[in-house]
Amino acid sequence: MKYDNNIPYKIYLEEDQMPAGWYNVRADMKNKPAPLLNPGTGQPMGFEDLRPVFCDELIRQELDNDTAFIPIPQEIREFYRMYRPSPLVRAYCLEELLNTPAKIDYKFEGNNTSGSHKLNSAIAQAYYAKQQGLRGVTTETGAGQWGTALSMACSYFGLDCKVFMVKCSYEQKPFRREVIRTYGASITPSPSDTTNVGRAILARNPNTTGSLGCAISEAVEVATTTPGYRYVLGSVLNQVLLHQSIIGLETKAALDLYGITPDIIIGCAGGGSNLGGLIAPFMGEKLRGEKDYRFIAVEPASCPSLTRGVYAYDFCDTGMVCPLAKMYTLGSGFIPSANHAGGLRYHGMSSTLSQLYHDGYMEARSYEQTKVFEAAVQFARIEGILPAPESSHAIRAAIDEALRCKQTGEEKTIVFGLTGTGYFDLVAYQKYNDGQMTDRIPTDEELQASISRLPKIPG
Amino acid sequence: MKYDNNIPYKIYLEEDQMPAGWYNVRADMKNKPAPLLNPGTGQPMGFEDLRPVFCDELIRQELDNDTAFIPIPQEIREFYRMYRPSPLVRAYCLEELLNTPAKIDYKFEGNNTSGSHKLNSAIAQAYYAKQQGLRGVTTETGAGQWGTALSMACSYFGLDCKVFMVKCSYEQKPFRREVIRTYGASITPSPSDTTNVGRAILARNPNTTGSLGCAISEAVEVATTTPGYRYVLGSVLNQVLLHQSIIGLETKAALDLYGITPDIIIGCAGGGSNLGGLIAPFMGEKLRGEKDYRFIAVEPASCPSLTRGVYAYDFCDTGMVCPLAKMYTLGSGFIPSANHAGGLRYHGMSSTLSQLYHDGYMEARSYEQTKVFEAAVQFARIEGILPAPESSHAIRAAIDEALRCKQTGEEKTIVFGLTGTGYFDLVAYQKYNDGQMTDRIPTDEELQASISRLPKIPG
Repeated sequence: MKYDNNIPYKIYLEEDQMPAGWYNVRADMKNKPAPLLNPGTGQPMGFEDLRPVFCDELIRQELDNDTAFIPIPQEIREFYRMYRPSPLVRAYCLEELLNTPAKIDYKFEGNNTSGSHKLNSAIAQAYYAKQQGLRGVTTETGAGQWGTALSMACSYFGLDCKVFMVKCSYEQKPFRREVIRTYGASITPSPSDTTNVGRAILARNPNTTGSLGCAISEAVEVATTTPGYRYVLGSVLNQVLLHQSIIGLETKAALDLYGITPDIIIGCAGGGSNLGGLIAPFMGEKLRGEKDYRFIAVEPASCPSLTRGVYAYDFCDTGMVCPLAKMYTLGSGFIPSANHAGGLRYHGMSSTLSQLYHDGYMEARSYEQTKVFEAAVQFARIEGILPAPESSHAIRAAIDEALRCKQTGEEKTIVFGLTGTGYFDLVAYQKYNDGQMTDRIPTDEELQASISRLPKIPG
Repeated sequence: MKYDNNIPYKIYLEEDQMPAGWYNVRADMKNKPAPLLNPGTGQPMGFEDLRPVFCDELIRQELDNDTAFIPIPQEIREFYRMYRPSPLVRAYCLEELLNTPAKIDYKFEGNNTSGSHKLNSAIAQAYYAKQQGLRGVTTETGAGQWGTALSMACSYFGLDCKVFMVKCSYEQKPFRREVIRTYGASITPSPSDTTNVGRAILARNPNTTGSLGCAISEAVEVATTTPGYRYVLGSVLNQVLLHQSIIGLETKAALDLYGITPDIIIGCAGGGSNLGGLIAPFMGEKLRGEKDYRFIAVEPASCPSLTRGVYAYDFCDTGMVCPLAKMYTLGSGFIPSANHAGGLRYHGMSSTLSQLYHDGYMEARSYEQTKVFEAAVQFARIEGILPAPESSHAIRAAIDEALRCKQTGEEKTIVFGLTGTGYFDLVAYQKYNDGQMTDRIPTDEELQASISRLPKIPG
């Protein structure tokens, strides 16, 4: 095997090389992400408007477009030490298999029980909820990674945790439920008859398999109607991208140790938490004009918010109880087909990433599920890690870029985010192994119909 | 949190600190493990006798009681780099929860897709099979960790792999099957009607839930009757303990870096591969009279080979097609209750460990399943890792030893092997979470009946 003895197979930072703060990419954006709007008045939502829903300190982080460096509290750094740093792995075996001159590195976030990067923000959000003296938090989960992460974080700090899980994931992943229960959280399939918004969604569409947008509506309703509770979210929000910047900061520190500058940085994108976190410090350099990188967001063809959506204000949730966010969206009523990358089944995209994409700082592409699983199995067999379906979107794009390098002979360095493991996605792998995997790409007419129902901004 | 800033939370060895060879503890044993015997003649089995079953180089390792250091081939070291070194983790949070003066470290082998330490020997055995020009290998698996590991290793080297999975695990763990299939191996529930020995076992006991002993018989039959195939085994054998010494060597190297000498070293014990590997270099020091350590083997009360078995020659398998090994055994006909620590449901114990135990170099204890899961959930919630049921036996014992230190005020250092994760054991966690977990401890009469059927040695 070709093997560069000067660069370790896996780079683990030492404890004293770990980031002491998160990086807030908004501080370096000329065009800031558009503010959240009150759907009733059309006015930007401030601290007081958001307090019924979110924890105080998290609102401050949400609204802070100026502070570049935000120190990570000691208690969170202690928790991070339990499963971080995550390794930056050189995909030597994959390179050899593809016979490409490209160098491929992946930042592997799956080596913790939640199975993904979601724990990075879960522990931060649970910490601030605990600091505020709350009893508990509510949330939604798609693939189940965020729900698992939050249940772990809440168990660590002794907080109650109520999880609404997208129904199709709940049914496909019985063992996810059990991990979440083991960590002491309650879990309800969404849409459910336990909330007003859930009952309304079920009345309109009794056979719905659910979506992240529905589950968010239910979790917000419970948080705002139960004393001592707030709602927390695993993606989309500015605060989440802030916490997830730990991924990019560690990646950059590891690359810097060996003088490596990536050419292309790739991440899967559902709500944008992983991609936003991975690219943050690199994007900062690009925004400040210090360096240039290509950034590629990869989404499922069944839920193509960046590649086929519109950039407009929309509800963050299906039930239209949340604020309006300006983002690339397919319409909050869009229900993607029940494909298996549950974590990517969201109708919109982080406002921060949407603005950066709109301003031309990054690219996007989409893949059909079968092509994604081809890459997943190829990767699993040669790199030894069974990847999550979400993460496998990034693998697909990284392989395609590496094959392009093979054609052109370019020795590019490709970094991608391997956000998690597929140990709870075996129903999807089974369908793929049995040749029964399908995908459903929305037609133009379907998307137009959904997008035509975007809310009008009052005032 | 109390936190010693001089000692990292997790110790990862650098690549140049990784062991270059395995350590063969037999070289330092005065009383060597008793040889395998031919059940027909009662004579020790030599290289030629074992060739129909095992790969040549693995037989050499099996029979070599003298060479202490055996270099690890370059190809295996390259594969090890994909998931090793495994971290040695200081259980600061668990210590704080228990309020114990003891220091607890665990060597975590679960951060790879097979989910356990089994990959350490799987890749070695697949490598030697490939070197010999074989077409494929057969094996058995209990919990599924070994089967997964072997399928990964065979996929890496392009070998065919046929796995017989203990029926109760096969049914409890449908997703294990799918991982194994994803790596391209075939998988058959055991006992099956695809082999003579499987059909005979089913005829005698149609409702059997299977055992490792049954599955071994079937895998050996297929290996010895299919051209170009050999049988490989994930535990019990000397060669496996040799490969698994990588665990102990890394552990010792990490501790030595910080001048730490453990007082107690704890591992779960089914066939003995993890325990034997973890303690190997420490046991070497004890055998050579250089240092003293307490070693504790932990087994399930439902399958208590060390604590309630006899030290005698017995078949390694239920179908009595394998050689005779001298070991602590419950009788090769013993079928343990279908408890969930599938990897510990073996009637016997490694000959090497049996000899060491017989000679007073280590201790053993057993726990009921419910007590084990109590420890598992406590550990998961505070240390963030959902442990395998097998590994949780070691956690239980480590917690009990730490609580004993709390009573006595002793500041002992306890090291235990956290062999794997429980991501495919959620049926067991569900039973525990629902308060429906049971255990069945064999009565003295049952054990006596089973042990009374031990084979007579001819000659």
